[in-house]
Amino acid sequence: MSDITLRLADLYTPIRADLAAVERVFDAELVSDLPFVNQLCERVRSYRGKMLRPALLLLVGKETGGLKPEHHTLAAVVEMVHMATLVHDDVLDDADERRGRAPVNAVAGNVAAVLLGDYLISHAFHLCSGLGSPEASRRIGAATNVVCEGELLQNHHRGNAGLTEETYFRIVRDKTGALTAAACELGARYAGAGEGTVEAMRRYGESVGVAFQIADDVLDVLGDRHRVRKTLGKDLTLGKLTLPTLHCLNNASAATAARLRSAVEGRRSCATDELRTWLEQTGSIDYAVGVAFEFVAEARRQLECLLPGDGRSSLAALAEFIVERQF
Amino acid sequence: MSDITLRLADLYTPIRADLAAVERVFDAELVSDLPFVNQLCERVRSYRGKMLRPALLLLVGKETGGLKPEHHTLAAVVEMVHMATLVHDDVLDDADERRGRAPVNAVAGNVAAVLLGDYLISHAFHLCSGLGSPEASRRIGAATNVVCEGELLQNHHRGNAGLTEETYFRIVRDKTGALTAAACELGARYAGAGEGTVEAMRRYGESVGVAFQIADDVLDVLGDRHRVRKTLGKDLTLGKLTLPTLHCLNNASAATAARLRSAVEGRRSCATDELRTWLEQTGSIDYAVGVAFEFVAEARRQLECLLPGDGRSSLAALAEFIVERQF
Repeated sequence: MSDITLRLADLYTPIRADLAAVERVFDAELVSDLPFVNQLCERVRSYRGKMLRPALLLLVGKETGGLKPEHHTLAAVVEMVHMATLVHDDVLDDADERRGRAPVNAVAGNVAAVLLGDYLISHAFHLCSGLGSPEASRRIGAATNVVCEGELLQNHHRGNAGLTEETYFRIVRDKTGALTAAACELGARYAGAGEGTVEAMRRYGESVGVAFQIADDVLDVLGDRHRVRKTLGKDLTLGKLTLPTLHCLNNASAATAARLRSAVEGRRSCATDELRTWLEQTGSIDYAVGVAFEFVAEARRQLECLLPGDGRSSLAALAEFIVERQF
Repeated sequence: MSDITLRLADLYTPIRADLAAVERVFDAELVSDLPFVNQLCERVRSYRGKMLRPALLLLVGKETGGLKPEHHTLAAVVEMVHMATLVHDDVLDDADERRGRAPVNAVAGNVAAVLLGDYLISHAFHLCSGLGSPEASRRIGAATNVVCEGELLQNHHRGNAGLTEETYFRIVRDKTGALTAAACELGARYAGAGEGTVEAMRRYGESVGVAFQIADDVLDVLGDRHRVRKTLGKDLTLGKLTLPTLHCLNNASAATAARLRSAVEGRRSCATDELRTWLEQTGSIDYAVGVAFEFVAEARRQLECLLPGDGRSSLAALAEFIVERQF
């Protein structure tokens, strides 16, 4: 195991039993009498990696008043919503790999993958509605509305080399920040925290989500030192500008900018070495990493309303971890 | 206007103002600050035809205890869920026409259509969670779970000429009956009806939904006397066996059955005249129409727990209408 894996295991130690409970709730909700549906869900289960959203919800809940059974349900709900977006994203991006395995669209076709995503969304809401009050359903529904808007906005701007940083940040805040924000908010609310703490945790979650997404952007062009990726710059081939490529476009020489613009508009990648050279010339990787760490710092500031201690330190370390893991 | 249109207008007279209120709730829920999202929703709005599911919910509510504002919300929710399934179905079937217009996938692409369907599902749950108790969310979530299973099961059996009638009925009950059942059940429950009436209305709704789907199957091979369809037998080209083609396959001569089986397995249509001749030889259209009317009769039997009067007659007439409209 790498140092990073060890460190994450440490951070998760206080919630290890809770994460196991979340997995049981998740699995029980999805059981079908149709064997092929269970097989598809089994593949989705293999997507579960760091379970970042459940972990955030549980660590926040533990720190802001203590965990109740509702936290396990809510954590399973946010993970299920996240899985639904992964399954649909893989269809939209025509992905052929997810955590080292063929994704649902690749093994069962796009039609089954669209329907399975719907099945996961439906079950997420069904599971959430089993809680005693409609409050969580309202909050999750509001969050998924925003996630869908973010995805629609991103798709609307595919191939648009004129994307502004403002719109980029809206997309990221909506498609990724909204769900981590809801996870942390619900973690605190169901622990009985006061409104001030609940709002601080919502902001913490949003900043963590945005930092995570920017780190993912950087990973797309830089690769990951922990494993080999087949292709780099996949976002470019999908016509998606990310923070590093957007910064490069706005700061490169006219000739380089023209070639990058043409790649975005034509939805094709550049040679990996060429792209890296451009990004280095404009300092765009350093810029994006710097912005990601600004969001981490903002997330940490939101933790100042909590009492100092192991719990607060874990939340701070988790925010750092999700950016550092890449580099 | 045709006689059919006039008759439907008569049936809807007692709920005309309520249907207008439902449209307002529907439209208000979907408003976005992103103009292109509103444009996509505008196209979805043009899919609204007979608003069968809201009408069922409202007519049942009116008859079993009276309408409350919650009924308008619930009716908008079931219509929004239905619209989401239409938008995704059009992607899955690569449809190029919906109510005489180009569908979302055709004007904005498959990616936008998948995301818009997700946006509609999310907003349906969000709208539902605005009601005071989680009961409706639980019921809608359970219904959409079943709808998704029905769609997954149908897709699983695409191109399978060995589909049994038992599985066919499960698919239809799940993908179409589950939502009409939930609509009628919620209509009665929110009107304050007793458990016996609520259960009878659920069964009424399920039978109406199944009858409607079988009528739709017949429409696919027979065409519609009210308008011209560009292609008939589209279900065959999608590898979907419907009640008429399934019956034909099981009752045709060996030679005809072999050719029909080959069409299903090869996911291609037959010449319209040829298909009609086969269906006539086996009496498969009459068979399917007969089965649809059996479900209408079953739906009418469930109405016997209601007091005789205009309301009960309207519900009975609506069940008849949805089958008769085609022939």
